[in-house]
Amino acid sequence: MNGTRAIADVDREVDRVVVTWDDGGRSTFHHLWLRDNCPCPSCRHPSVPERLVDTLSIADKIAPETVGVTALGGLDVTWAGDGHRSTFAADWLDEHAYDDGPRYEAPARTLWSGGAVAPPPEVSYAAVMESAAGLREWLRQLERFGVSFVRGAPTTPGTVVGLAERIAFLRNSNFGLLWDVVSKPDPDSLAYTAHALGPHIDLVSREMLPGVQLLHCLVFDADGGDSVLVDGFACAAELAAEDAEAYERLTTTPVRFRYRDGAGTDVSARVPLIRLDVDGSVREVRYSNALLAPLDVPTDDMLPTYRALRAFGRILVSGRHELRIRLQPGDVMCFDNYRVLHGRAEFDPNSGPRHLQGCYVDRDDFLSRLRTLDSNVDPDVDRRVY
Amino acid sequence: MNGTRAIADVDREVDRVVVTWDDGGRSTFHHLWLRDNCPCPSCRHPSVPERLVDTLSIADKIAPETVGVTALGGLDVTWAGDGHRSTFAADWLDEHAYDDGPRYEAPARTLWSGGAVAPPPEVSYAAVMESAAGLREWLRQLERFGVSFVRGAPTTPGTVVGLAERIAFLRNSNFGLLWDVVSKPDPDSLAYTAHALGPHIDLVSREMLPGVQLLHCLVFDADGGDSVLVDGFACAAELAAEDAEAYERLTTTPVRFRYRDGAGTDVSARVPLIRLDVDGSVREVRYSNALLAPLDVPTDDMLPTYRALRAFGRILVSGRHELRIRLQPGDVMCFDNYRVLHGRAEFDPNSGPRHLQGCYVDRDDFLSRLRTLDSNVDPDVDRRVY
Repeated sequence: MNGTRAIADVDREVDRVVVTWDDGGRSTFHHLWLRDNCPCPSCRHPSVPERLVDTLSIADKIAPETVGVTALGGLDVTWAGDGHRSTFAADWLDEHAYDDGPRYEAPARTLWSGGAVAPPPEVSYAAVMESAAGLREWLRQLERFGVSFVRGAPTTPGTVVGLAERIAFLRNSNFGLLWDVVSKPDPDSLAYTAHALGPHIDLVSREMLPGVQLLHCLVFDADGGDSVLVDGFACAAELAAEDAEAYERLTTTPVRFRYRDGAGTDVSARVPLIRLDVDGSVREVRYSNALLAPLDVPTDDMLPTYRALRAFGRILVSGRHELRIRLQPGDVMCFDNYRVLHGRAEFDPNSGPRHLQGCYVDRDDFLSRLRTLDSNVDPDVDRRVY
Repeated sequence: MNGTRAIADVDREVDRVVVTWDDGGRSTFHHLWLRDNCPCPSCRHPSVPERLVDTLSIADKIAPETVGVTALGGLDVTWAGDGHRSTFAADWLDEHAYDDGPRYEAPARTLWSGGAVAPPPEVSYAAVMESAAGLREWLRQLERFGVSFVRGAPTTPGTVVGLAERIAFLRNSNFGLLWDVVSKPDPDSLAYTAHALGPHIDLVSREMLPGVQLLHCLVFDADGGDSVLVDGFACAAELAAEDAEAYERLTTTPVRFRYRDGAGTDVSARVPLIRLDVDGSVREVRYSNALLAPLDVPTDDMLPTYRALRAFGRILVSGRHELRIRLQPGDVMCFDNYRVLHGRAEFDPNSGPRHLQGCYVDRDDFLSRLRTLDSNVDPDVDRRVY
């Protein structure tokens, strides 16, 4: 795992080899696994990042003819039967050793209450747009805190698109690629009114949540309209600690969200309010009072479900995990839409204009960009026009 | 549930009312649920499709002052305390009664072997483009069989975009909104070579699979290159019936897929090969030999996991659930990318050209369009330009 070990010795067993590293550690690799992961150019395409070896083509009882240690401390296998040869670098084997099972890439998250992120993480627009280091800093803040403010952006409409495309292409929805948050005469969302919006996750009625949201403040002269951010993962952790029964219920009871306008969109998702990942950690906090469909759990579960939902909601609106700020023109408020709920106070549209523009990027692409930045891939090489 | 019942009588209990319908049936509605679902214009926005009532604002011990039956057989409640009044239509209550728990909208699926869909479901391009009925027929075939061929499309490049937009906007990816499947000099996917492709699901390395894939044949004069489709849900059902242990393992063991090119994309997903939905039905069959990352289950699970994976793979490639066809110019092969695997035989790029164009639409939007068609919403009203 440290990437600097070499193999000192190899023992053959009936269905596996056991490697002894030069620091005394040991790793087990099954014959089938080794043959399936042969890195030679006929088993793995030399330039296309895909496997050519077909797992189904490997004999059940595949076994080596010979095994040995390479000059560089890697593993050399010649397979009985067809004489195919597989050579594994020590680093690669060490990285992929599975004796203890999966090594999750646990994100480095810092849960916060309002006070703990005031002032909230920020980066300058220029740094993000002009350097890989600035881009990486921005995305690391988003990954760690679920929130980052980009300051000093031009207030030209459409600016947020170029910022988002530093990560990847935009995620589309029924609201379009780029949406204007203003008080509109014929709104299809409460966002496009002057109403207060309680803390919520966007597009909860879709199975596939957008991962990252960017909200760019162009003009803000209206009275009211402060923004609120809430760390939903911190709230989920508080619920788990204080009310295990409610937490258990919310992580296992699917509830339905639905958004149906009169113009051709009718999306619906049935998911737990707190959705866990495969490793048991919280993956999504899917809370939106405005879009929750009528609960349809069985009669005996109805009041316990309401109790759990309200216990969680009360933590969300308690203010303990809330960051309240007034956006300034040129601010881009960016947050993890799986984790951080956003809302706003009511504003008075007659007191002055308030104009934000927003867009989304999917979490797959957000994580992809983080990985490539960590691998020092220049983020500008794939600035294709989408 | 039949939508024609009226309420004959209402009984009050401490925390709920019990309604007796005029056909003798009974439904229970908790006070909290009724107050939370009040349909009046101050609790539910009259034009924006969102709730205004805040679940958290309702008193724990909310109770009616009076309950009664309306002239139309609905339910009339005046709430103690603030005197707020909620009137529920009989149809709406009947539709949302929850005594027996959720009513899943189980898709009407027909699982198939190759023979059972030969000839496969098809619709004409003209019907889909020119009528809501044709569009609905196409989407119903996709929902039922996971596959539908649109015949007689023009062979003009870009045609498939307009076809996909009959459903909704396109789903983007690192391969772009519209991709050309041809043998390329510097491919970033095996799809863009002349290699055979085993049956697979597209973009398995993303947490968020694209829901529907459209592949439009423009030119096909090359030797070889027959297309193969496999019903993955039929294969999963066969595995469940014949090898319950393998099925159990594949539905519960997360495995990792990864796609990393040299140009800025590094996506990774850790999910079970067979992913179940909240109701226990199969949601996704995520099989792609080419993109499976090295298995990293704990040592003792490695051989059982391989055994299960190979048992499933052998069903997939057995030919029993396979449809094999040679695309003709003007055909658009459309399939459910959660369910139906696709592949192709090797072809000889020197024997003549082969040019397909493909794109994706997300499942949320596919289902949304189906719902709105079922509600007789004209699909042309939201043909906005994305």
